[in-house]
Amino acid sequence: MVASIVLPIKKVYALLDSKIIVEIKDERRKLQGRLVAVDEYLNVHLEETTEFINDSRGRTLGTVVIRGNNILTIAPTL
Amino acid sequence: MVASIVLPIKKVYALLDSKIIVEIKDERRKLQGRLVAVDEYLNVHLEETTEFINDSRGRTLGTVVIRGNNILTIAPTL
Amino acid sequence: MVASIVLPIKKVYALLDSKIIVEIKDERRKLQGRLVAVDEYLNVHLEETTEFINDSRGRTLGTVVIRGNNILTIAPTL
Amino acid sequence: MVASIVLPIKKVYALLDSKIIVEIKDERRKLQGRLVAVDEYLNVHLEETTEFINDSRGRTLGTVVIRGNNILTIAPTL
Amino acid sequence: MVASIVLPIKKVYALLDSKIIVEIKDERRKLQGRLVAVDEYLNVHLEETTEFINDSRGRTLGTVVIRGNNILTIAPTL
Amino acid sequence: MVASIVLPIKKVYALLDSKIIVEIKDERRKLQGRLVAVDEYLNVHLEETTEFINDSRGRTLGTVVIRGNNILTIAPTL
Repeated sequence: MVASIVLPIKKVYALLDSKIIVEIKDERRKLQGRLVAVDEYLNVHLEETTEFINDSRGRTLGTVVIRGNNILTIAPTL
Repeated sequence: MVASIVLPIKKVYALLDSKIIVEIKDERRKLQGRLVAVDEYLNVHLEETTEFINDSRGRTLGTVVIRGNNILTIAPTL
Repeated sequence: MVASIVLPIKKVYALLDSKIIVEIKDERRKLQGRLVAVDEYLNVHLEETTEFINDSRGRTLGTVVIRGNNILTIAPTL
Repeated sequence: MVASIVLPIKKVYALLDSKIIVEIKDERRKLQGRLVAVDEYLNVHLEETTEFINDSRGRTLGTVVIRGNNILTIAPTL
Repeated sequence: MVASIVLPIKKVYALLDSKIIVEIKDERRKLQGRLVAVDEYLNVHLEETTEFINDSRGRTLGTVVIRGNNILTIAPTL
Repeated sequence: MVASIVLPIKKVYALLDSKIIVEIKDERRKLQGRLVAVDEYLNVHLEETTEFINDSRGRTLGTVVIRGNNILTIAPTL
C-alpha cells in the first residue's frame, strides 16, 4: 500500500528548472529562484535567487544552496 | 511486539485525499489543504491550501510542500 | 553490553492506550490524550486530545498526530 | 582509527542508574533525575525527576521521557 | 529518473578551496571563509574565517567547523 | 571523487584531547573544555568545561556531554 503512495518530493522534482518560492522557517523571509537541484532532504540549489522580506523584494542573491531542515515550504511561483 | 504496534504515520495515510490541518511549529499559523502526498518524514504535499493565522483565515496558497520537521501537528479538518 | 540496555522508547510503548501528557518544545503548551500509536522517532498519535496552555485547560482537539522532534517530554498522566 | 575513538554516548551509559542533570535547549530549565534508559539519539528516560528553572527547584515530575534533539547537555549531578 | 537529478551538494563540492559565505539560521550572522571540507550533512570546515553581523565585519575566527543543520544557506562569495 | 574529499569531522578528530570552544546555537553561550570524545553527529564529551556567556567567564561545569544538533561551531582554543 505504501508503495503506491505518491511522495511529496515528486512534486518538488516536477518543479525542477522552474521558478519556486522557498519559505524560510521562523524568519519573515522567502527566497525565490530557479530550482536547479534538490535532494531527499529538500536541500535545494537555486539560481537567479531574489530575497523577499515581509513580501517586499530584497537583495538579489544569485546562486544559493539552502539547507532543507530550515525550509518551511516550497511552492511554485504563482 | 514492536511489529504489532500501530504506527502514527498510518493515521496520516488514512487522511490522504481529505482535508487536513497542519500546524506549524513556533508560528501562530496553520495550513489547511487537501493531502495529496506524505512520506515517512511527515513531509506533506497539500493542494487547495489556505493559511490561518491565529485561527483567522489568511491567504490562499494553492500547491504547497511542507518540510516535516517544521510541522507540529497534523489533524483531520473537524 | 548495549544490547542489555533498556531503551527510553520502551517506557513510551508501556503507555500505549493510556493517557499521556506531551510537552511541546518552546511553547507553553501541553497536549494530553490517549496514546494510540508511537514510532521510533517519538511521533505520536493521540485520541481524545485536550490542549493545556500554561497548565490551564484549552481546546479539545480530538485526533492529533504530533511530530516527534517538536516534543520535549512524554510522561504518564499523574 | 575511528574505531578506537571513545564515543560521547559511552559517558552517558556510564551514568545509568545515577542522578543526572539534563539541560533543555533554549529554555532556562533543567531536569534532574535518575537515568533509567538512554539510546543513541540521547533520548533519555528519567525517574524521580525534578525541574529546575533558573537554577531554583520547581515541580516534581516523576517519570519523564525526554526527546534527545531538545537536550542541550547531559552531566552527572555534582 | 532520480539518478539523473543533479544534487545540491554538488554545487557545494564545486566551491571547495574557494571563499564562501555561510548564513547562520536565526541569527543575523554570516561566516565567510575558505571551504576546506564539507560532508553530506552540509557540515563545513572553514579556514581564514571572518564573522559578519548584520553585514558588517566582525571578529576573525580562523579555523571553524560548523554544524550543517544550523546553516541556512551556503553561497559563493560574490 | 567524493571519496577523496576531506571530511569536516576529521578536523574535529584532530582536536581530541586538546582544548576546544563549542558555540551553542541561539544562546550567547560557549563551552570551553578538553575534547574527550566526539561522534559522527558531532555529539561531544568535554572535561574541565568552563562556560562563557557573552565572552565573559561563567561557571565551571566539569564533565559535560553536548548534543551535536545544538552546536553551532567547534573551534580550537586560540
